[in-house]
Amino acid sequence: MDAEFINPFLSSVLNVLSTMATIDAKPGTPAVKKDQTAQGDITGIIGMAGKQARGTLAISFPDKVLYEITKRMIGEESGVNIDDYTADTAGEITNMVTGGAKRILSEKGYEFAMALPTVVSGKGHVVRHKPKVPVIIIPFETYAGSFFIEICFEKPNGS
Amino acid sequence: MDAEFINPFLSSVLNVLSTMATIDAKPGTPAVKKDQTAQGDITGIIGMAGKQARGTLAISFPDKVLYEITKRMIGEESGVNIDDYTADTAGEITNMVTGGAKRILSEKGYEFAMALPTVVSGKGHVVRHKPKVPVIIIPFETYAGSFFIEICFEKPNGS
Repeated sequence: MDAEFINPFLSSVLNVLSTMATIDAKPGTPAVKKDQTAQGDITGIIGMAGKQARGTLAISFPDKVLYEITKRMIGEESGVNIDDYTADTAGEITNMVTGGAKRILSEKGYEFAMALPTVVSGKGHVVRHKPKVPVIIIPFETYAGSFFIEICFEKPNGS
Repeated sequence: MDAEFINPFLSSVLNVLSTMATIDAKPGTPAVKKDQTAQGDITGIIGMAGKQARGTLAISFPDKVLYEITKRMIGEESGVNIDDYTADTAGEITNMVTGGAKRILSEKGYEFAMALPTVVSGKGHVVRHKPKVPVIIIPFETYAGSFFIEICFEKPNGS
């Protein structure tokens, strides 16, 4: 999986957080994921499918970071219980990040359609991607803590 | 979501289990999922995306049922540690069931592409689908216990 595939997700994360939650996130170094355990407490997952490639984006948030993002997206003075909305936020951010990356990849000639987002939670939950397909994990640092995106893509030729 | 969408998954589950693991499964009554908690210990999830509909299939297995299915797929005399393969089996069954349903739905005029399977585990893990999209859950009974499929589909017109 090359940088051409990873960078659109990276810039989409920064754009979504800045636009929707006025949060500046700083990306860390991409690495190949080795440990199967999700890095966060709650993980948004969305599938992507097209002729040239198919894959999955997962974004895993510690509870504290997702709470802060949700609070900023909803507005502190809204009077609602922020905890009631964190799962929806995880799914919605995963959906928006993928939508943004899809637009950028489309300009590069990669077309795919998006599935519906799924949100998984549970302390110490484990997220395994398809065996033998490399998974790239990228940490993002914010004032509230770090969260992590995982990108797993398979081209028909197996690269 | 109508029976036209659900039945292909139902018949594909029976076919995959019978062919791959020589297990007869008996489907129970489909119901709208209300509780968010996954019914099993390990859940395979796969996204589907097309112009007419997008959605997700999740298959949630209690550990004991998945162990039996894996044992029968690999073969009891293989000498391998079955536990090392249960997660792969959950992903592979989810992938094969969706592939079978895709073929049947294609004959009915519904085309979609499949994303990659993801497998989530962790005691009491919670799987939430997209808010406001109905989720149909169908139990399947086997000699080893029950497992559950969850189908979540959204058509562009919101039905």
